[in-house]
Amino acid sequence: MILTVTLNTALDITYRVRTLRPHASHRVSEVLERPGGKGLNVARALAALGHEVTATGFVGGATGRAVRERLTGVVDALVPLAGATRRTIAVVDDLTGDTTQLNEPGPLVTPAEWSAFQKSYEGLLASADAVALCGSLPPGVPVGAYAGLVRAARAAGVPVLLDTSGEPLRRAVAARPDIIKPNADELAELTGSHEPLRATQDARRRGAHTVVASLGADGLLAHTPEGRWRATPPGPLRGNPTGAGDAAVAGLLSGLVEGLPWPDRLARAAALSAASVLAPVAGEFDGRAYQELLGRISVSPEGMAA
Amino acid sequence: MILTVTLNTALDITYRVRTLRPHASHRVSEVLERPGGKGLNVARALAALGHEVTATGFVGGATGRAVRERLTGVVDALVPLAGATRRTIAVVDDLTGDTTQLNEPGPLVTPAEWSAFQKSYEGLLASADAVALCGSLPPGVPVGAYAGLVRAARAAGVPVLLDTSGEPLRRAVAARPDIIKPNADELAELTGSHEPLRATQDARRRGAHTVVASLGADGLLAHTPEGRWRATPPGPLRGNPTGAGDAAVAGLLSGLVEGLPWPDRLARAAALSAASVLAPVAGEFDGRAYQELLGRISVSPEGMAA
Repeated sequence: MILTVTLNTALDITYRVRTLRPHASHRVSEVLERPGGKGLNVARALAALGHEVTATGFVGGATGRAVRERLTGVVDALVPLAGATRRTIAVVDDLTGDTTQLNEPGPLVTPAEWSAFQKSYEGLLASADAVALCGSLPPGVPVGAYAGLVRAARAAGVPVLLDTSGEPLRRAVAARPDIIKPNADELAELTGSHEPLRATQDARRRGAHTVVASLGADGLLAHTPEGRWRATPPGPLRGNPTGAGDAAVAGLLSGLVEGLPWPDRLARAAALSAASVLAPVAGEFDGRAYQELLGRISVSPEGMAA
Repeated sequence: MILTVTLNTALDITYRVRTLRPHASHRVSEVLERPGGKGLNVARALAALGHEVTATGFVGGATGRAVRERLTGVVDALVPLAGATRRTIAVVDDLTGDTTQLNEPGPLVTPAEWSAFQKSYEGLLASADAVALCGSLPPGVPVGAYAGLVRAARAAGVPVLLDTSGEPLRRAVAARPDIIKPNADELAELTGSHEPLRATQDARRRGAHTVVASLGADGLLAHTPEGRWRATPPGPLRGNPTGAGDAAVAGLLSGLVEGLPWPDRLARAAALSAASVLAPVAGEFDGRAYQELLGRISVSPEGMAA
């Protein structure tokens, strides 16, 4: 199975209103709830691709129960927390489709809860073919958390993909993860370079075996031990980019466990990412759109940075 | 005990953000949750005044569990629902204190659930000294619902106060409730008159034994079988008027079960209402502010409408 880790899970709530006006009262016409947090999005996409997936991380309170109840197609190995899972609220304007986002901070994780998670994680690694560590750290989890989880995965011989940002990313890269998947901003913050070819090279020097940068409309740029490639979608896409990075992570992991060559993994990741942008709900994708896009992704080798 | 009925309960959530800007992403700095819906606000205020209170109505889902967990000091006789209790979200700007409100529509009540509620309500009336019917009707509950609940209370000899609006109010007034407590808009909608003295008289002609109109800064105007009075707070109040009407309802019921004369009931209701405006959280009140305001409410007889 593939293991996904979401330390800061969320109950993602989407509201439709006519138009959001500050300091007015609004009748919500439609309410949608789904499990959220990057790793749970990855888990759902992997399950939709037909993979066996186990999701771990933290979950607590009434919102945590709502997350668990909606986590279908995925083995639930989430670790209970005394605090309540955070909510995120996306308020979508009916007229324009524009979205206003409200994100709760998330519950405090105690040292005992963090220890319980680490023990459970190490047990789950024994039957994992690959592991994805995704998203931000909740309050109370040490900033070096991902570095420790990367080391544990490597000690267990399980390939590990990391998708986070800031100081947790910087520390974990030094622990030599197999793959990191930063976006343009996260890559620039890590390396100090806004030039993606140069920055992916620098991120590898810092410890990552492979760097797959997700560059929005410019597709994916991969720097691997076997070479460099760019995977480009067919023209600009209109839609909701939220969750496109998570779909790309699912594509990379799926290709990894199936032993696909890098160009095929990248085509899959780019097609899933594009299909997720086209889907009405953030982080979902339409199977037919994915299959259709898969044939239209161009993957080409990239030269070295000057 | 005093029975309060809240057919459309809510989990009231308050978010603090710096400034709400449409189509931007916001970090919520503080999350507050409390049981909501007019009848639950009334129940909390009555409990704070030292009364025995039983709360009934509908509750369901993870949000319903969160409501029940937070319902302290009140006997919980809420009837379970397959659907989930709605949320209301108040987004408060840190800089100005201005509030943006998002209200979910509420779950559908099935005919079987509505029957189960009616049976439970009739059982609870046997030990009730007074009953308050408060707030809007959730989808699925018939528009004549409050009329039936008023008739059942009167048949059981229990004084009944009604605080609702629109067609449910119009129908229930004809069933001759002991007290209705409309605000200025609700009273105008019921009677077609924007002149409160004339409108309270008209509402009595339609069936209400007593009409207590809550007129914001102008205080309360009561038309009872024993006379007319106006209860006025000491000058304009700055604060959050949400829940001020519910505090007034609690004051009226509290005075009723204690057998206070009308002027004292009105002073209590007006003081609680004013104390609730001054409190930082909607629908709560500070006991000292209430006691202090109680001495500063002026209650005076009102002449008949021309």
